Amino acid sequence: MTASGSPAINRERLHRRIDELAQIGKLGDTGVCRLALSQEDLQGVLLVKRWMEEAGLQTRIDAFGNLFGRLPGKDAGKPLLMAGSHIDSQPYGGRFDGVIGVLGALEAVQSMAEQGFVPEMPIEIAAFCDEEGCRFNKGLFGVRGITGKLEEGELERIDAAGVTRREALLAFGGDPEGFEAARYQEGAVGAFLELHIEQGPVLEALGRPIGIVSGISGPLWLTVEMTGFAGHAGSVPMPMRRDALVGAASVITALNALARSEPGASTVGTVGALTVFPNSRNIIPEKVTFTIDLRDIDMERRRERETQLWRILEEVAQEHGLTYTVREDTNSEARYCAERIKQVMHEEAAQLLEHTPPELMSGPFHDSLAMSNVCEYGMIFVRCKDGISHNPLEYSTPEDIELGVELLYRTMVRMSKVEREGG
Amino acid sequence: MTASGSPAINRERLHRRIDELAQIGKLGDTGVCRLALSQEDLQGVLLVKRWMEEAGLQTRIDAFGNLFGRLPGKDAGKPLLMAGSHIDSQPYGGRFDGVIGVLGALEAVQSMAEQGFVPEMPIEIAAFCDEEGCRFNKGLFGVRGITGKLEEGELERIDAAGVTRREALLAFGGDPEGFEAARYQEGAVGAFLELHIEQGPVLEALGRPIGIVSGISGPLWLTVEMTGFAGHAGSVPMPMRRDALVGAASVITALNALARSEPGASTVGTVGALTVFPNSRNIIPEKVTFTIDLRDIDMERRRERETQLWRILEEVAQEHGLTYTVREDTNSEARYCAERIKQVMHEEAAQLLEHTPPELMSGPFHDSLAMSNVCEYGMIFVRCKDGISHNPLEYSTPEDIELGVELLYRTMVRMSKVEREGG
Repeated sequence: MTASGSPAINRERLHRRIDELAQIGKLGDTGVCRLALSQEDLQGVLLVKRWMEEAGLQTRIDAFGNLFGRLPGKDAGKPLLMAGSHIDSQPYGGRFDGVIGVLGALEAVQSMAEQGFVPEMPIEIAAFCDEEGCRFNKGLFGVRGITGKLEEGELERIDAAGVTRREALLAFGGDPEGFEAARYQEGAVGAFLELHIEQGPVLEALGRPIGIVSGISGPLWLTVEMTGFAGHAGSVPMPMRRDALVGAASVITALNALARSEPGASTVGTVGALTVFPNSRNIIPEKVTFTIDLRDIDMERRRERETQLWRILEEVAQEHGLTYTVREDTNSEARYCAERIKQVMHEEAAQLLEHTPPELMSGPFHDSLAMSNVCEYGMIFVRCKDGISHNPLEYSTPEDIELGVELLYRTMVRMSKVEREGG
Repeated sequence: MTASGSPAINRERLHRRIDELAQIGKLGDTGVCRLALSQEDLQGVLLVKRWMEEAGLQTRIDAFGNLFGRLPGKDAGKPLLMAGSHIDSQPYGGRFDGVIGVLGALEAVQSMAEQGFVPEMPIEIAAFCDEEGCRFNKGLFGVRGITGKLEEGELERIDAAGVTRREALLAFGGDPEGFEAARYQEGAVGAFLELHIEQGPVLEALGRPIGIVSGISGPLWLTVEMTGFAGHAGSVPMPMRRDALVGAASVITALNALARSEPGASTVGTVGALTVFPNSRNIIPEKVTFTIDLRDIDMERRRERETQLWRILEEVAQEHGLTYTVREDTNSEARYCAERIKQVMHEEAAQLLEHTPPELMSGPFHDSLAMSNVCEYGMIFVRCKDGISHNPLEYSTPEDIELGVELLYRTMVRMSKVEREGG
């Protein structure tokens, strides 16, 4: 083992692999398009599989299209320590999203193996299939597969070209017949660790290279449709108007104020999509449809904000003579990282870094969200430039990534000998 | 002449013609599609031409595609009294928009002729070509033609099928070579009168069948583009956001408040069209483009509101960390109806109606707007159901239309003998 403070991982190998994987589905100078279950995705998976084998891991691609590499432990019967993420990308994606979690975990376990370290329990490195969900409009596929959370009709979803997920999965080498057998039994996984770029601007603003995730704040996703009455923009006096866009605008500004109402709180509220009908410059908008995304790591506060939001909708509709409907698209609970794992990360980070890494919540989903249903989990975030992700401009410095992988490595080492230590 | 209070016009003939014209380009039970310079438009023009001839008028279709019917006056050298509107329609239009102005004026002059009334000056009934502007995306074509207000490149504009206006006009029987000769000389028209459905809800709300127009409030049309910075809706804390849609929403609510700030004022402000980029539910909007339509019959007040609007844009951009550009698409001055003509209408209405007709401004354009550049003008509005227009649901009762035509008739009679009376 390395002394505290100097890196144990092979940084050169880590970056070489990140660069090499970025050649597959390369977009421009820095982008990547490796849509789930595509030829590029398969090519990437086979490359990572080869690297896993070079590291001495036992590899397999399961029925869901997940890639696993296994390092045996002293006791094959003990719950697994799993680490990883995904290597599929957005259609106009970056090189780091998911990738550093897979290649970082591989680097960590390869370093452990090279150092002759034998973990108590088996360690598995996962590259989960279709985390992004952009091809079939529903993500976290592979990880939901092994945790028994797939839903009716998922294999019948089609992509833009009319290909079903079933067809794409079969072509990829997956096996819908084998789903049941590929599920992980309850208790099979003890803990899951995921390293990921932050996909937000918090660490950069704090001037910190890495952070420890407190939890994933599941979003409340609503679609609101407000309806008023169209009319000529020149001829309907203001007091007689029932302008759906004025109503929607009032909701947008009120939601923004609501999310900011408690300074320093982790609440975020966003209207990301909005369409106007008939959308003509001289016609008063009759119908406006817009989405609401409300998140908070504090579920009690989120529910309170939700109640306030419903009151706002009602008041705005009353004031502007509008009717409205609200459809709930998603309502996920926040999922918290295990205190025990965060504690290990903090202790190890204290050896590694000058400053204690900040804790921050994750707004975006990750494979960890699904894993949290079956085991404890912990996440490490790596600073990314301007908070940009899902874009070729996505960027994290090699140094920050190294620190993240090093902390992952140390956490894995500690956790895979913890039973010996703690009893 | 008829006694005051009992109608002079032939109501049965008026409604029969409105119904018969509505058969051409009929859409469903009540709608009409008679796009400018289409076969349907030509068929309509030829039908109205035949009715003009039955009324004893001298007819012609000019180089711009306008139809005129002329009743000679005692003095051929006197400036014309012109009355009319248009019979082309929106693609999904109604039966009354424009039509009652043409057929109402025809009915008025036919009644005058049948009653043996000879006007001092010649009277011309006009059915102007392409008022609506939806086919070539620029309206008031024919009336701008005779008043010398056509712009560069108008004949090269193309419709959705790629047909140029030049081609369509030639097929219709128009003649670009004859434009110069077809222009009305300065002073040729003394006054223009137009009867039109209100296309707004004011008369209905007041419970009045007809109104006298105070003027046409030219709109200020702006296109605003606000730019912030995209980011994941879950991961960018509220204080770090530069959300272009929150900015746009603030402008929309502020414009709405601005237009309402003087109770009872004729100011109207509308954001009718808005698009969001990238318009994804979990991405903070980076760019929002929206239109602004600001009108007021009081130009001083409109300019004041415009100044306030610019201040709002600046403040909102500052507050939300946005940049913005504003493009001015149209900036028309309000055009006021002649006091002299409104006075005649009020006096005649006093004989005809129980209550004084209200004065109201016109938000929409009309052929009168272009005529106002060369002569005095006056307009009469007829109540329309729910303020709906440019829609097959457009409706005015036969009784209200009769009252409008009767007032037009009486105004025309007064105005075409006024010199004798007044000296």
